[in-house]
Amino acid sequence: MSLKVVIIGAVALGPKAACRLKRLRPEAEVAMIDQNALISYGGCGIPYFISGDVSEARQLQETSFHMVRDAEFFRLAKDVKVLTRTKALAVDRQIKKVRVRNLDIGEEADLPYDKLLLATGSRPNRLNVPGADLDGVFTVTGLEEAVRIKERIASGQVARAVVVGGGAIGLEMVEALSDLWGIETTLVEIQDQVLPGVIGPNLARMVRNTLAENGGAEVYLSEKVLKFEGRGRVERVITDRRTLETDLVVLAAGVRPNADLARAAGLEVSPGGAVVVNSRFQTSDPDIYAGGDCIENMHLITGRRVYFPSGSLANRQGRIIGTNLAGAVEEFDGVVGSFILKCFDLAVGAVGLSLPRAGAEGFEAFSAYVVQGDRAHFYPDMDLMHLELVVERPTGRVLGLQGLSNKGDALAARIDAVAAILKYRPTIRDISHIELAYAPPFSAAMDILNALGNTAENILTGQNRPIDVDEFAAIFNRRDQDGFVCLDVRGSANAEPFVQKYPDVWINIPQERLRERIDEVPADKELILVCNSGVRSYEAQITLDEKGIKNTRNLQGGAAAIKKWGLDLLEEED
Amino acid sequence: MSLKVVIIGAVALGPKAACRLKRLRPEAEVAMIDQNALISYGGCGIPYFISGDVSEARQLQETSFHMVRDAEFFRLAKDVKVLTRTKALAVDRQIKKVRVRNLDIGEEADLPYDKLLLATGSRPNRLNVPGADLDGVFTVTGLEEAVRIKERIASGQVARAVVVGGGAIGLEMVEALSDLWGIETTLVEIQDQVLPGVIGPNLARMVRNTLAENGGAEVYLSEKVLKFEGRGRVERVITDRRTLETDLVVLAAGVRPNADLARAAGLEVSPGGAVVVNSRFQTSDPDIYAGGDCIENMHLITGRRVYFPSGSLANRQGRIIGTNLAGAVEEFDGVVGSFILKCFDLAVGAVGLSLPRAGAEGFEAFSAYVVQGDRAHFYPDMDLMHLELVVERPTGRVLGLQGLSNKGDALAARIDAVAAILKYRPTIRDISHIELAYAPPFSAAMDILNALGNTAENILTGQNRPIDVDEFAAIFNRRDQDGFVCLDVRGSANAEPFVQKYPDVWINIPQERLRERIDEVPADKELILVCNSGVRSYEAQITLDEKGIKNTRNLQGGAAAIKKWGLDLLEEED
Repeated sequence: MSLKVVIIGAVALGPKAACRLKRLRPEAEVAMIDQNALISYGGCGIPYFISGDVSEARQLQETSFHMVRDAEFFRLAKDVKVLTRTKALAVDRQIKKVRVRNLDIGEEADLPYDKLLLATGSRPNRLNVPGADLDGVFTVTGLEEAVRIKERIASGQVARAVVVGGGAIGLEMVEALSDLWGIETTLVEIQDQVLPGVIGPNLARMVRNTLAENGGAEVYLSEKVLKFEGRGRVERVITDRRTLETDLVVLAAGVRPNADLARAAGLEVSPGGAVVVNSRFQTSDPDIYAGGDCIENMHLITGRRVYFPSGSLANRQGRIIGTNLAGAVEEFDGVVGSFILKCFDLAVGAVGLSLPRAGAEGFEAFSAYVVQGDRAHFYPDMDLMHLELVVERPTGRVLGLQGLSNKGDALAARIDAVAAILKYRPTIRDISHIELAYAPPFSAAMDILNALGNTAENILTGQNRPIDVDEFAAIFNRRDQDGFVCLDVRGSANAEPFVQKYPDVWINIPQERLRERIDEVPADKELILVCNSGVRSYEAQITLDEKGIKNTRNLQGGAAAIKKWGLDLLEEED
Repeated sequence: MSLKVVIIGAVALGPKAACRLKRLRPEAEVAMIDQNALISYGGCGIPYFISGDVSEARQLQETSFHMVRDAEFFRLAKDVKVLTRTKALAVDRQIKKVRVRNLDIGEEADLPYDKLLLATGSRPNRLNVPGADLDGVFTVTGLEEAVRIKERIASGQVARAVVVGGGAIGLEMVEALSDLWGIETTLVEIQDQVLPGVIGPNLARMVRNTLAENGGAEVYLSEKVLKFEGRGRVERVITDRRTLETDLVVLAAGVRPNADLARAAGLEVSPGGAVVVNSRFQTSDPDIYAGGDCIENMHLITGRRVYFPSGSLANRQGRIIGTNLAGAVEEFDGVVGSFILKCFDLAVGAVGLSLPRAGAEGFEAFSAYVVQGDRAHFYPDMDLMHLELVVERPTGRVLGLQGLSNKGDALAARIDAVAAILKYRPTIRDISHIELAYAPPFSAAMDILNALGNTAENILTGQNRPIDVDEFAAIFNRRDQDGFVCLDVRGSANAEPFVQKYPDVWINIPQERLRERIDEVPADKELILVCNSGVRSYEAQITLDEKGIKNTRNLQGGAAAIKKWGLDLLEEED
């Protein structure tokens, strides 16, 4: 008798597992059910569908060669039976049957299984505030809801929008709404930075600055939505600080695992609400598997379970589950949290832990931050890339990497290289020595990633004593009270405007003249050393150390970081 | 008494070691000599200087912020003494002095050292044929020679050029000469493919095809240069097959280590002519270090010494040597051979061993080849990327990765991720599971690299029985003799022209109809299964296996590979 497998959920992980299983055991009888009509779509593409980059919802359902992955496709091409608009009501583990209901005709039936896969995914966090169920308050986790958002925009009903939540989906939606459609978009985030938990405050500030500059989007941080108001349709968002008039609200306040069926069937569920699985994705019932957005994963840096919903992860796990359903053994080790995001012309990448998160996880950590060209400095389309490496002190263990770049693929190259090795517990030395592919159109001879490893080592040994731009901005704003001086070691053409504007706290001695002009350095003051990117100021710090002037800090990223951060020291006074 | 260090060679590794040493030990006295006037330049930028992408030679010498790294710069900014136009004549290890001569005034002197660094680099292989010393026969290893080439081109003296050598520099020079300057350029390579030793024949054929299409460059393979002819200046290149009229010859026939000084000083030199060093870059005399292009490195895949000249490697090794010169201990493990090249709009990447090289190194190896989008299939600027994974049989150990893409940074992301883990001896499973950063603008949910690992696994287990396009082309050309049939499993719109043109050997049954039309399959013939990319043909192979039809091979990369390879099956007959 052939193996009977039922799969609940047909978006990403379910179809992948079904197809892998069928390739290994073509005789298996596979039934896949989904309560929606649209299945097997690229859910991560929803912001690009809404923006118009992807014109038809159907495209998110297609294969690379334009076949639509609907029930008929799965029947013919994959020999997998798909029941759409079919809801799984309950799992009876004793008799190994799933009770299902057809949502169109109301008919119920039992699907028998030998093995069952829960691919029930996630559901969006809806705010528990008045008006959250008003018309016009949308989430973007399903394709059918996305179609409704786009219809509303395309019909000209949306001039203003509010996005609630500054995570990845929130930022993608800000771009989707404001860039192509020209909708006046406001982002409200409850925490004090965008992308909390993904990047540190320094880079987050730079992302926010980019949003404001490129997109013209208003960003309100540390601000809590209290209610939504409107007659029938949403018209206002009331936060704890202001009222925002709006025609549309996108709730992008994260998602949580959908473990209802598992819980009802008596399977083990974690305190975070996720289905608990082993390394083969078996639940507490070994004939029932679960994976993707309804489970948690081992985080390979912290050694703790983490919730990391991701379409890519769902696909990779789906294949592994398919292998296990077929009777072979394949294990999954865990995740390192690789992340990349396009937001207007900026790409934001991350892997492992950000500095705040490393602290929250109990690591004694510091970070090194480098701004450098993504190509050889002489190559025409060179852009500055920003990378931050998070390191455990004193072991030198690498905990994470985050970065920004206008060239997303070039950023991905650095993120992916570190993502690939994180499971091997690399140290700074592994970053300093990493052998990336080199040619002038793609990297500098000393790649920014190697330079970042070197900088982290210099910080760890105390050779480089940095200050980041976040702290610099705070100090600079208190410059009347604090007794510091900025020693600008660039050429005078760069430095002069600052010296003119801030004569009390800004002096200029080019790095290459520092040895001969050492007597001009105010050795009694705390010195903040500034250059274009943090390299020459580091050289200056060493020279000053040698001369016995040790009360210095080197501004990481230099003027390039100041600019990206949005601290305009030369702007006209109001 | 302060540490005295002499560094011979001031292009890449020498300056890096000098600066690192000075940062760790500011009191050290460092003298760096070079026989050329121009120092500390990005030698890898020479093709881009010649092409005009970089307009001034000076730019290759600048820092990121436009300071020229000349002797004066090193004196002031780095406290390093530089002697240009100064040749090291001999090293006296007994009295620890280097005999040097000033090439302008002829004066000789002795430079005493406590530690000596040989950063003598490489020299180009000049062909040992008549006329190789004619005017107009250039190499491109030094900036001064590059200036002369560019002057000659810019003055309108070059309508035709011949590049000898189809390695990285040769291909970069083909682009440099033909793309911007419009010079009619011919490439002559003695081996039977471009980039021998770097990529396998299948990808090499695709690169060659690109050269011919994009650049219009003639490429002659398996062809040996016998002599150069001309009156005073080169006018003709005579090969064993033809005569090429030319105004300029670029010899790009590789480089070899320059170990003359080391050999004369009695230091150990390898059979390959490289200075022998330990993991700290100490030569057989522990007070003398060497690194960069004058040494060989441990290859982390083969465990054997390999010559891998690279400006990036020189920089990384320079820093490590600086650390060791300063008295600390830092070791270098070896290289994995990361490589990337821009050639017209195509990028070629590689790391580890190509399939032919794996065979030559004694590995029983096979390769998997996948063509897939570099972004989500629905994302607007998606391009097809080509990747080949070289794997040891039966261990599944990953030996190398090579690839092609029009988006070089996107290719670098995959190459770099594998480059980063190669030292940990990954297997196919590590590639299948690798967690690259995912968002639709940067990758597919199942990234091409994951898909490549999956494909390799399917080949290793015998689930996928492939044929590559190189072999397919050979078989197809013998189709009168061989008894095979191409079973095209695409939709009929794609397949019909082939069926029309090759009715005896080409039939069409779309994959999704294969189960119901199984009786139409000519089960007695060898079947070559064809689709657009190799995915549906793999599905078809499994379906046929299930039906007992097992004499099948799946064309890896499908029609996409056929096209890139340049096999135009539908072209008009002559």
